[in-house]
Amino acid sequence: MIKRALSVTREDDFAQWYQTVIAEADMAEESGVRGCMVIRPWGYGIWERMQRLLDDRIKAAGHENCYFPLFIPLSYFEKEAEHVEGFAKEMAVVTHHRLIADGKGGLMPDPSAKLEEPLVVRPTSETVIGAAFARWVQSWRDLPVLINQWANVVRWEMRTRMFLRTSEFLWQEGHTAHASETEAREHTLRMLEVYRSFAEEDLGLPVVAGEKPEHERFPGAVATYSIEAMMQDGKALQAGTSHFLGTNFSEAQGIRFQNAEGQLELAQTTSWGVSTRMIGGVIMVHGDDDGLRVPPRIAPHQIVIVPMLRDAPEDAAIVDYCDKLAGVLRGLHAFGEPVRVLFDKRAVKAAPKRWGWVKKGAPIIVEVGGRDVAGGNVSVVRRDRLYREDGKLDSAIVAQADFVADAAEMLVEIQHGLFAEAKARLEANITRGVTDFTGIEAAFAEGNKAPGWVEIAWSRPTGAALDAVVERLKDLKLTMRNAPLDGGPVEGACPLTGEPAVERILIGRSY
Amino acid sequence: MIKRALSVTREDDFAQWYQTVIAEADMAEESGVRGCMVIRPWGYGIWERMQRLLDDRIKAAGHENCYFPLFIPLSYFEKEAEHVEGFAKEMAVVTHHRLIADGKGGLMPDPSAKLEEPLVVRPTSETVIGAAFARWVQSWRDLPVLINQWANVVRWEMRTRMFLRTSEFLWQEGHTAHASETEAREHTLRMLEVYRSFAEEDLGLPVVAGEKPEHERFPGAVATYSIEAMMQDGKALQAGTSHFLGTNFSEAQGIRFQNAEGQLELAQTTSWGVSTRMIGGVIMVHGDDDGLRVPPRIAPHQIVIVPMLRDAPEDAAIVDYCDKLAGVLRGLHAFGEPVRVLFDKRAVKAAPKRWGWVKKGAPIIVEVGGRDVAGGNVSVVRRDRLYREDGKLDSAIVAQADFVADAAEMLVEIQHGLFAEAKARLEANITRGVTDFTGIEAAFAEGNKAPGWVEIAWSRPTGAALDAVVERLKDLKLTMRNAPLDGGPVEGACPLTGEPAVERILIGRSY
Repeated sequence: MIKRALSVTREDDFAQWYQTVIAEADMAEESGVRGCMVIRPWGYGIWERMQRLLDDRIKAAGHENCYFPLFIPLSYFEKEAEHVEGFAKEMAVVTHHRLIADGKGGLMPDPSAKLEEPLVVRPTSETVIGAAFARWVQSWRDLPVLINQWANVVRWEMRTRMFLRTSEFLWQEGHTAHASETEAREHTLRMLEVYRSFAEEDLGLPVVAGEKPEHERFPGAVATYSIEAMMQDGKALQAGTSHFLGTNFSEAQGIRFQNAEGQLELAQTTSWGVSTRMIGGVIMVHGDDDGLRVPPRIAPHQIVIVPMLRDAPEDAAIVDYCDKLAGVLRGLHAFGEPVRVLFDKRAVKAAPKRWGWVKKGAPIIVEVGGRDVAGGNVSVVRRDRLYREDGKLDSAIVAQADFVADAAEMLVEIQHGLFAEAKARLEANITRGVTDFTGIEAAFAEGNKAPGWVEIAWSRPTGAALDAVVERLKDLKLTMRNAPLDGGPVEGACPLTGEPAVERILIGRSY
Repeated sequence: MIKRALSVTREDDFAQWYQTVIAEADMAEESGVRGCMVIRPWGYGIWERMQRLLDDRIKAAGHENCYFPLFIPLSYFEKEAEHVEGFAKEMAVVTHHRLIADGKGGLMPDPSAKLEEPLVVRPTSETVIGAAFARWVQSWRDLPVLINQWANVVRWEMRTRMFLRTSEFLWQEGHTAHASETEAREHTLRMLEVYRSFAEEDLGLPVVAGEKPEHERFPGAVATYSIEAMMQDGKALQAGTSHFLGTNFSEAQGIRFQNAEGQLELAQTTSWGVSTRMIGGVIMVHGDDDGLRVPPRIAPHQIVIVPMLRDAPEDAAIVDYCDKLAGVLRGLHAFGEPVRVLFDKRAVKAAPKRWGWVKKGAPIIVEVGGRDVAGGNVSVVRRDRLYREDGKLDSAIVAQADFVADAAEMLVEIQHGLFAEAKARLEANITRGVTDFTGIEAAFAEGNKAPGWVEIAWSRPTGAALDAVVERLKDLKLTMRNAPLDGGPVEGACPLTGEPAVERILIGRSY
C-alpha cells in the first residue's frame, strides 16, 4: 500500500477527504463569519483563471459586462410572486444604516437610522436588472440586450459546505432580453452550450446538458436547463444553469418595446449563471488521495520549479539555473497562452515544498538539484502520473532541452488526460436500460458507495403526479438531475408512473 | 463659436457637465436603489481595463488575490475603537435572514429570523482580513503576507454623486503584514508609487503623491499617503490611498509572530485602495465639451470603425472593406498588447454613430464610405484633435495602408498627449511661494472658477492647533490635500500658524 499525501482517502470518507483537500491545498478556510468562507490565493487563483476563460467565451457570444447594485428594495421582489417565494426564506436583509454604542461597551444598529424600506442583499439580480432593461428598451431596435455581471450574491444557508454551499458566493449572472420567444429560447440553449464547452474544454469536467424537470426550475422561469457533472462518489453536481424566463420578469418589471409594426410587446428574457461552486466540482472530479489535480488551463501556475538547496556553495548555481529555466519556459505557449511558471524560492525545504505543490495539484513540478545542474538535466514530476508501478514517486530525470521541447505538449496531454479519465468514469457510472422501479432501487442499494446515475425513459408528469414521483424518489435520497438534450427517442412505460415514456431523464444523488 | 456635442460646457456648469458626460457616454445611471448606480458597459469596460492593468502591477509587486466575506460581525469592529468611530455612521447593517408576508400584500423581515449578532456590510476589510492574518501568521517565516482583493464595499452616503461618492462602490484593497516597521513603511510607500505610476502611465492622470495630514488619516492608521489629481475645475480628487497601520490592527486582531530570536511580536500591517472613484477622475481630467476622451490604454475599444452605409448595393463592399480593415488592425500591437478594434455594425445611421463614439471618447474613429473603398482610403478622426482651426471636424482622408502603418503609434501619441495636457494644467494651477494667509485668500477669491491649489510651507501642527487651522481653512471651503513626498526643503514661517515651517503642503477645494 502506497503512503499518500493526505490523511484520509476518498474511499475512507469522501466528505472528509473533500474538506482535507481544501485545507491541505490552501484553497479556502472558514472565515469566522457564519456561512462565509475565505478564498485563499490558490483557490482564488483558480477562480481567476475560470473567470478569464468564461468571460472570454461570454464576450465572444456578444455580451458586455455591467455592474448592478448589491441591494434590492423589497418592492422589486414583491412584483414577481414565484420568484420571491423561491428566495424569501434565505435573504439577508439590511434594515439600518448606522451603528451606535449600545451602552455596554459594544455596538448596535442605531434605531434612529432605520431604513424606510428594507433592502435585500441580492440573491440573484433578475429584478434589479429587469428594472434597468425597462429603462433601456423602447423599440425593437434596442433588442437584443445582452449583458453579464460578475458579482457576489447571498443566499442564507443553514448548512454550509465550502465552495458547494455558502451564504455568500461569487458568480457571473448573464441577463438578456429579446424580441421573440424563439430567439430567447435559442439564446438560453446557446449559453448552456457555452457552459458545456467551458466545463469540458477548460475545466476538464465532462457534463450532461439537459432540461431540469418542472419542480426544479428557477423561481420565475418557464424552462431551466443545467449541466450536471458526476463527482467521484457518484453524486451529481449541478454546475451551471440557463433559464428561459418568458415574459414573467418583463411583465413584473415592465420591459416593453414597440415592434416593427408599431405595437407594444413584452420582451422575452433569459438568465444564466455559474458560480464558485464549480471549484467544488473540479476538486471532486479531479482530486485524488494526494490532493487536488488542477487541469492546466485553469492552473494559476502550470509548472512549478523547486530548487533542491542545501545551504551549500553550489546553491547559487542552482538558483541561477532555475532562473534561466523559468525564463525559457515562460517563452513557451500552451493553449494559445504563455505558459505560467513559478520558480518557488521560499525558504522551505525541498521535500515539503514538493509535497505542498502535489497537494495543490500543480500540473508539472520540476525539481533541480546540484546533480541536475551538473548534468544539464531536470527532474520532472507529472501530477497526473505521480507514482511508478512499484509505488515509488515517478520523478524522471531528463535533459533540460528535452523537457523544454516537450513541456507545452505535456500540459495539453495532462489537460486531455484528466478529461478522458473523468469522461470514462461518467460513462461507466450511468446505468441505462432500467425499465422498472426495482431496477432503480437496486442501483442505489445500500452499500453501493458510488452508485452513479440511472437513466430512465419517463412520462414527464406534472402537478400532483409529479409531486408523488418526487416524494417516492426522495425516500431513496434521489433527485431528478436533467433530461439530456441528446437523449434520443424513447419507448415503453415510465418506471415511475406507468404512463408512456416521452423523454429520458437522469436520476441520482446530488450535492 | 463651434457647436459642441454636449448640451452644457465645462465653463457653463462643471457639475452639470460631469453628469451630462456620464449620461451621454452611457457610462452609468441611477439605479432606483438609493445611493447605488448601475455601471453600464462603456463605464464598466473602462473599469475592467483599469482592473487588468492595476492587477498586473499589484501582482508584479508580489501580491496574490484572495476573497474575504462581505459581512463582518459587529464584534470585529468593536476591537479597534478609532476604526469603528470612523465608519460607524455610514454602515449598512444586516439584522434578519428571511422575509415573510407582511399581511398587506407586501413583505417584511421575519421577526423570528433575527440575527443574534448583526452583520455589517464591509465598508473596508481590515478587521476581517486581520482575523485571517492572525490565523496565518505564527512565525517570522510566514511573513510578509502580501494579499489583495477586488470587491464591493458599502459606506452609506447621504449625498451621492456618480462614481465619486456612492453608497456601494467597487475597489481593490491590498493588505499586508510584515515583521518590521521599516519594511511595512517601505511597503506603504511602494504601493503609493504603484498607484502613482498606474495613474500617470495607464490613466494619463498626473498626480501628486504625498502624506495626508494627521486629521485626514484613515481611521486606525499611523500614517496615510495619497495621490491627488487636479480636476479641470481646479478641485482635488483623492485618487488612491496607502496606509501604514503600525500595530493597531494586529493588536486588535491578535496578529502575533515568533521572531528569529524566539520572542513574540506584533506584526506591522499596511492597507491601500483604489476604487471606481478614479473613473470620475478620468472624466473630469480628460473630458471636454464633446464628452469623454478615454486614454487609449484604458479604452475598451481603441479604434472604432464606422461604415457609412446608404442602403445601397455598394454597402456590401463597404462592410467587406471594414471587416478586412478590422482584421488587419487587430493584428497590430500598442503598449505591448493587441490593438482593440470595434467594427460597429449596429443599425444606426453613420452621423449619430460617429457622435456617439465621440461622446464616449473612443481614441480613434475610422469612417469608411463608398468613396473611401474606391480610393483605398479611410477617414480618420482623432478624439484628441477633433476640430480644425476653422472649427470644422478634423476628418483626414488617408490611404488605408498609411493609417495601418501609423495607427499603433497614433494611440501611443494620444495617450502621451492627454497626459502632457493634464500635466501642464496641473503645473500651471499650483500657486507656489504663498507665505501669508492673505495670499491663500486671494488665490481662492470669489469669481475664480478654477483656482487650483496653493502650496505653502507649514509647521505641521497637531491637536488643538491643527483643529484651529482646519476650521480656518474650512471657512474658505478649503482642505489640506497632502504634503508632497518630493516637497524639498522649506524655510520661513507657516502662514497658518506663524510657527517655523517644516514641510510643504497643498491646499485646495476637493471632491
